[in-house]
Amino acid sequence: MKVILARDLLQANSDQAQQNRLFFERFGVVSLNLISSPGAGKTTLLEKTLFLLKDKVAVGVIEGDIFTDRDAVRIAGLDVPVVQINTQGTCHLDARMVARAMQELPLAELDLVLIENVGNLVCPAAFDLGEHYKIALLSVAEGSDKPAKYPGVFQRARAVVITKADLLPHLDFDLDACEEELLEIHDSLEIFVTSAKSGSGMRHWVNWLASLTKGPLAGRV
Amino acid sequence: MKVILARDLLQANSDQAQQNRLFFERFGVVSLNLISSPGAGKTTLLEKTLFLLKDKVAVGVIEGDIFTDRDAVRIAGLDVPVVQINTQGTCHLDARMVARAMQELPLAELDLVLIENVGNLVCPAAFDLGEHYKIALLSVAEGSDKPAKYPGVFQRARAVVITKADLLPHLDFDLDACEEELLEIHDSLEIFVTSAKSGSGMRHWVNWLASLTKGPLAGRV
Repeated sequence: MKVILARDLLQANSDQAQQNRLFFERFGVVSLNLISSPGAGKTTLLEKTLFLLKDKVAVGVIEGDIFTDRDAVRIAGLDVPVVQINTQGTCHLDARMVARAMQELPLAELDLVLIENVGNLVCPAAFDLGEHYKIALLSVAEGSDKPAKYPGVFQRARAVVITKADLLPHLDFDLDACEEELLEIHDSLEIFVTSAKSGSGMRHWVNWLASLTKGPLAGRV
Repeated sequence: MKVILARDLLQANSDQAQQNRLFFERFGVVSLNLISSPGAGKTTLLEKTLFLLKDKVAVGVIEGDIFTDRDAVRIAGLDVPVVQINTQGTCHLDARMVARAMQELPLAELDLVLIENVGNLVCPAAFDLGEHYKIALLSVAEGSDKPAKYPGVFQRARAVVITKADLLPHLDFDLDACEEELLEIHDSLEIFVTSAKSGSGMRHWVNWLASLTKGPLAGRV
């Protein structure tokens, strides 16, 4: 019989996450945990972000997927260090998985590690991976009501990247209402409205990422 | 200390689900469990489906959401019996929640109950609610690679409704590749390509639903 002690497990996860965070900090690495629904465009945003960022900032990637290594293959094509985690059915990454994946990255050479979580707007929000910040992605195709319906991840996020903005002319997405709802949930959120396809908003988002690696998170002031 | 016995819980869920199914069948009601990512368009599909179906088939709806009753309010506007379940943070519906919600529906007057699960492509697939069939929705905005990356729900589904087909001209979604991948996962899947916005494909989907209520699932042959 499999016995899970829910509170113990979450505590063990928090302990491991804290160790991961200290380990990142020992190397002056800032770590971000990207969370969204399936198909919100995490990997495409990552590809474009890495393309714009990698000459300024040394970035590594941890790719979380339930199955397949398709995303890691896409990222590896950009000549960036990338490690794939396959959760084999589990609906979120946890700190232990990230602890193992970190060992495979050349942390001493990196400024920033981007962790792409499993596509799921609910469960990943509850598991600290040792990141400095959670970043939530929301595709405009999902509808502007999602922050109120799935508040957990938006409450815990430092920034929200609204993706696929090139589709706005074809949708009934109310951008103002969505931003207002996000700021009601969490009034110091950074909000970036982006299209990886057209490039709009990407420079603003990438500059913000670069600024994190030059600030106190990275031990630099 | 909270102790969860994982296997026992899943067994208890299966037992309750079996009771729910028998209860639906006692009233000749066919029940379907709609599963998708957040924002794939479950509620919009439901609205258009009910509009086309409700004069032919007596339909009731169980709305699952983590928080808010927005979806139930939308459905109630169509003058269809609807019950809202708020999971208060839980990432899926379970059979016990549905057992309680069923009591609030006039089952003796219904042919079909549509259960809209929480927006999550992973966890809901593991929980039998007492439905006759699971129906997976996939929005074309999510990308054609989702069946391979999230196979669980597609393996267990009887039908897949591809939604938001009106966006296809603006996306790189490969419909043929997606259908091929779906049929590789599960070769007797029904696949419907729909746009609730333009109405395309809706008649085919609605006719299939109507046919279920005239077949052996409803105790009619």
